[in-house]
Amino acid sequence: MYRSHNCGELRASHIDNEVTLSGWVQKVRDKGFMLWVDLRDRYGITQLVFDDERSSKALMEQAQSLGREYVIQVKGTVIERASKNANIPTGDIEILVSELTILNSAILPPFTIEDNTDGGEELRMKYRYLDIRRNPVKNSLIFRAKVAQEVRNYLSNEGFIEVETPYLIKSTPEGARDFVVPSRMNEGQFYALPQSPQTFKQLLMVGGMDKYFQIVKCFRDEDLRADRQPEFTQIDCEMAFVEQEDILNAFEGLTRHLLKEINGIDIEKFPRMTYDDAMRTYGNDKPDIRFGMEFGELNDVSQHKDFGVFNSAELVIGIAVPGGNTYTRKEIDQLIDWVKRPQIGALGMIYARYNEDGTFKSSVDKFYDQEDLAKWAELTGAKPGDLICVLSGDAHKVRPQLSALRMELATRLGLRNPKEFAPLWVVDFPLLEWDEDTERYHAMHHPFTAPKPGQLELLKTDPGAVKANAYDLVMNGNEIGGGSIRIHDKKTQALMFDYLGFTPEEANAQFGFLMDAFQYGAPPHGGLAFGLDRLVAILGGQETIRDFIAFPKNNSGRDVMIDAPAPIDEKQLEELSLKLNLKSK
Amino acid sequence: MYRSHNCGELRASHIDNEVTLSGWVQKVRDKGFMLWVDLRDRYGITQLVFDDERSSKALMEQAQSLGREYVIQVKGTVIERASKNANIPTGDIEILVSELTILNSAILPPFTIEDNTDGGEELRMKYRYLDIRRNPVKNSLIFRAKVAQEVRNYLSNEGFIEVETPYLIKSTPEGARDFVVPSRMNEGQFYALPQSPQTFKQLLMVGGMDKYFQIVKCFRDEDLRADRQPEFTQIDCEMAFVEQEDILNAFEGLTRHLLKEINGIDIEKFPRMTYDDAMRTYGNDKPDIRFGMEFGELNDVSQHKDFGVFNSAELVIGIAVPGGNTYTRKEIDQLIDWVKRPQIGALGMIYARYNEDGTFKSSVDKFYDQEDLAKWAELTGAKPGDLICVLSGDAHKVRPQLSALRMELATRLGLRNPKEFAPLWVVDFPLLEWDEDTERYHAMHHPFTAPKPGQLELLKTDPGAVKANAYDLVMNGNEIGGGSIRIHDKKTQALMFDYLGFTPEEANAQFGFLMDAFQYGAPPHGGLAFGLDRLVAILGGQETIRDFIAFPKNNSGRDVMIDAPAPIDEKQLEELSLKLNLKSK
Repeated sequence: MYRSHNCGELRASHIDNEVTLSGWVQKVRDKGFMLWVDLRDRYGITQLVFDDERSSKALMEQAQSLGREYVIQVKGTVIERASKNANIPTGDIEILVSELTILNSAILPPFTIEDNTDGGEELRMKYRYLDIRRNPVKNSLIFRAKVAQEVRNYLSNEGFIEVETPYLIKSTPEGARDFVVPSRMNEGQFYALPQSPQTFKQLLMVGGMDKYFQIVKCFRDEDLRADRQPEFTQIDCEMAFVEQEDILNAFEGLTRHLLKEINGIDIEKFPRMTYDDAMRTYGNDKPDIRFGMEFGELNDVSQHKDFGVFNSAELVIGIAVPGGNTYTRKEIDQLIDWVKRPQIGALGMIYARYNEDGTFKSSVDKFYDQEDLAKWAELTGAKPGDLICVLSGDAHKVRPQLSALRMELATRLGLRNPKEFAPLWVVDFPLLEWDEDTERYHAMHHPFTAPKPGQLELLKTDPGAVKANAYDLVMNGNEIGGGSIRIHDKKTQALMFDYLGFTPEEANAQFGFLMDAFQYGAPPHGGLAFGLDRLVAILGGQETIRDFIAFPKNNSGRDVMIDAPAPIDEKQLEELSLKLNLKSK
Repeated sequence: MYRSHNCGELRASHIDNEVTLSGWVQKVRDKGFMLWVDLRDRYGITQLVFDDERSSKALMEQAQSLGREYVIQVKGTVIERASKNANIPTGDIEILVSELTILNSAILPPFTIEDNTDGGEELRMKYRYLDIRRNPVKNSLIFRAKVAQEVRNYLSNEGFIEVETPYLIKSTPEGARDFVVPSRMNEGQFYALPQSPQTFKQLLMVGGMDKYFQIVKCFRDEDLRADRQPEFTQIDCEMAFVEQEDILNAFEGLTRHLLKEINGIDIEKFPRMTYDDAMRTYGNDKPDIRFGMEFGELNDVSQHKDFGVFNSAELVIGIAVPGGNTYTRKEIDQLIDWVKRPQIGALGMIYARYNEDGTFKSSVDKFYDQEDLAKWAELTGAKPGDLICVLSGDAHKVRPQLSALRMELATRLGLRNPKEFAPLWVVDFPLLEWDEDTERYHAMHHPFTAPKPGQLELLKTDPGAVKANAYDLVMNGNEIGGGSIRIHDKKTQALMFDYLGFTPEEANAQFGFLMDAFQYGAPPHGGLAFGLDRLVAILGGQETIRDFIAFPKNNSGRDVMIDAPAPIDEKQLEELSLKLNLKSK
C-alpha cells in the first residue's frame, strides 16, 4: 500500500496518527540540522520534517539527497507544526518522517512546476505531463470534468439519452474540411471523421429517440486560427416534437444550471435579440452585453453637410467611449491607427470629444456645428466626458470594424470582467449568407436548417431575406452554442439542396439516406450544439481554451509532445498507396 | 407546443383532462363506426378513439386516412377505457380526439416496427432509424446510456477525473492495425486514430492526475470477426501510487455497483484465479464459471496402457457432461464430428458412459478397465448418469479444444443463463506470449506492462515463464476488462522494448516521449480498461453487442445505412495524393 492518506487531507485532528504518504518533492528547505520537504500530489501539499534530534543520520542523508520532482513514499507521525501556515489546508500539521523510500528519481524539469512558471507555451506543450502538474492546468482539467459531468447529470435528469454516434462516417460536400481515413478493408474507399454528428442526431429523431445528447469529439481539417483545435468537443443535442421556444427553454435551463452549480451565479432569464438587431446595435452576431457602448446610426444627422466621406457612405455609425475625453491627441491617433490596421480595415475614424462643460470638439468641426454633434451624442448615448468614435463605409464592412473597436476599448476600459456572465440568445438568423468568393449563397448554419414557416417561396425571389428558426447562445462576446429547427420532409430538403447548388444526383449521393429517412415518418425536430472547449473556458473565466485541454495541438495542428502528425514508413506508405488506389501524375 | 404529455404518462387520474399528444401511428383498427389508433412515442403507447357519435365526419375520414408510422398530433379529452388493457401503463384510459393534425406522412416501412420484426439484420442496418423505433433496440440504447452514466457517477464519486485524450495521435509499431489520417496542413504526414489512450493515460499519471477515467472511442483497422466493430468504446482507467490489489478493489467496486444498480444483484466478492489455473481448469483465460464441468487431467491414469493416442499425447484431459449418458450413439457421433470441425480442430474424442448402476462403457474399453474408468470419473468429477468426454494432444491445442466443447455443451444444457452473473479476476498473466507466425515473443497485454517484481532477470533466461501483475476481469465467459501494473522507469521500459525486438532507435522514435516522461518523476501506476460494448451486452443479458450500438457497422466494416466508406471524388483524391506525397509504382 503506497499511502494511507493523500497530501491534502491531514488536519490537526490527525495528530499522533501514523501515516503513509506518497507524492512529488515540491521543495526541500535544508538548514543542516533541520530539513523540510513539501510533498505534493493532486490533492495538496503536506510538509515533511526531518531533524538531527529525531531522525537518524542515514535518514537525514537520504532526505538531503532528494531533488525537486522526486517521487517518494514516507511513513511517519502527524505532529503539530511549530509555525502554522494558514494558506494551505494542511498547514496545522507536518509529518515527522520515520522511513523514506525513493520511488523514482527525477532529472531537472525544463521549467519550474509552480503556479507562475518560467516555461513558454511551446515548451510547456512539449512537456505537457509536467505542465499538468502545475495547479492552474491541473485545476482546469478537473474543472472541465466537473462541467461535463454537470451537463450529463442535468440532461439525463431531463430525460435526454446520451447516444454514441459513429466516428467513421462518410465524406460530405464540404469535404475540404473533412479528415479522411482510408479503409484497408475496403480498397480505394475512405471514411471521414465527423465535423459534427448532425445527420446522425437527426436520424435518431426519425428513430423516435425524442431527446438526444452526446458529449463528442468533432474534427475539422483546416488552417487553424489562434486558439482553435483540429479536434474539438461538442455538447450535441437534439429534440423531437419541439418548436424553437422549447429548445431555447431547455438549453437556457442547462446553461442556468451550469452557471449556478459551477459559478454560483443565478441568472433569471436570458435576453433575446434578433440577428438584425444584434448587427445593428453591436455590429456583431455574438455581442458582448456586459457593457453598453451601443452603436448610434448617424446617417440622418451627418449626411446633410458637405463632408464627402460620410455623404458617400452607406452607413455612418458611432459609439460613445465612457470617459474617453481624457484621451490625449496622441492616444486618439493611436486608436485611429488601430482601426486602420489590415485586420480591422477601416479607412479612418472621425471623433468628437464631449467636454464636461457640454461643448463638443471634433475632428470634423469644419462640417459639423455644436448642434450637429449634440445629435451624435444623443444617438450614441454619449455623456459629458465621453469620446464619440465614428466610422463610415459599406454596412457589411463598417459594422464589424466598429464592433472590433468597441471590444478593444471595452477591454482597455476593464469592462470585460471574466467573472461576470452575460448570456443572451441571438435569434432569427438569415437562412443563407452571400459568399463573395464563390458568388453564391451558402447555408448560414447548415443545409438542414428549416426556413421560417411561410418563407419557403421567398427563397426564389429574395434568398438573402429568408430567415430561419436558427439561434445562437452567446456569452460574453462568444458563441457558446448554436442550432436550429430542422427540415423534416424530403421535398423541402431536396428544394434546399437545389437552392444551394447541388444537383439532385449530388444531393442524393451525399444525403440520400437522410432524405429517405424523412419519408418514413420524420417528426418535427431541432437542436443545438455547444462548443464545450469554449464553454468551459468562459465558465472558468479564461480567454484561452488550451489550458482546458489535456493534450492540445499547436496552431499548426501539431502535438509537439508526441510529434504528430508524422511520416509513416516507406513500406506502410506503399501498402497504403496501393490499397487506396491513388495515382500520382 | 406539440404536446402537453408524452404517450406513456396518462393514467386514470388524468381522466377529463384536455391533452395534446404527438407521436407515430403504431396501428389503426377501423370498425367503420368506430376507429382506434395506437399512438406511439419513446415513452409508450396511448390509445386514441374516434367514433361516429362523438367525432365529426371530417375527423373520422381524416383518421381513416392514417397509415402506419404517420406522425400526428392530436388534441382531445382523456376518457376511461371501456375494455382496459392491463399490459400497458396507459391501459386504463384513451383519448377522445377532437382535433387531428398530420405532421408527416410515411411510406410503408421495409419491415414491421414491432418487437418481433420480419426484417433481416442487413435490412434493419440499412434502415437503422426505423430499427431504433423498435422497443428492443430503443431500450438497448437507453440501457447503454444508463450503464455509461452509472459508470461516470460511480467513478466521479470515487475521485476519478474524466480527461479527454486526443483522437489524432501518432502511428504505433503495431501500425498495421492503425487507421491513419492524412494531415492536409502537414504535407506527407499522418495522424493515427488511437487503438487505446494507453500512453496518454500513463502521461496523465506522470502529470499527477492520480485517478483518471474516460469513456472513449478506440479504433482498429483489421478484418472483423463476427460481432467486432472497427470503432469501439472503452471505459479507460488509470491510477497512480497503486498496487494490483488497489486496482482490483477499485474496479471490483465499480462492477459490483453496476450489477447492483443495473441488474439488482449483490455479489459479495469476486473470486480470483491465476492464469495458469484458469488454463488448467477451464482451458481458457476467460472461463465461464456459472457452471462446473472442470477439466480432469488424465495423463497419470491413462498413459500406462497400450492406447497409443494417449501415450503419445502431451496432455489427456476430460470433462464430465452432467446427465450426458442419455446421449444416443448418434448424438455422441455428432459431438465427435463437432470437435473435429476445422474451427475446433480436435483429431477425435474418446468418451466413457457412467451408467446409473455405477458401471462404465467407453469407446476405449479395449485399453481401459472399469477401475481405470472409475479414476477418470473421479478426476473429472463425473457422477452416475454423466458422460465423460476426453481429448488429447499438445497442451496448447487440446485445452482450447476441450474448452470449446465445454462451452458448447453448457449452452446445449442450458447452463449459461444470461440473467446469472459470475464475475472473476484472472491474474498473473504471462508477460510475453510466443507467436508461432513471427517466431518471436510478443507482449501479451502491451509493452508497457511491468514484469512481476524480481522477474526482470528471468526475461533473459526463460522469457515465457515471466509473469506480470496483469489481470483480466471476466464475466460469463467474456473478458470485460483487462489491465496491468505498468513500467514506470525509463531503464526497464527500454529493456522491455529491447526484449520485444525494437532497436533503441525504433523504440525512441515511437515512444521516446513516454520514456522521456519517466525521467521526470513518474509514480508507480497501473490501470484497467473495460470494453463498454461487451460489458453493456452482458449486463443486458445479450450475446450480441450490435443492438447496443446506435449505428453499427457490418462484418466488412461498412455502415450500410450511410454507405461508408466510399470513394472520394477524383479532384479530392488527387489533391490528397499530392499532399500525401504518395508515389505509385
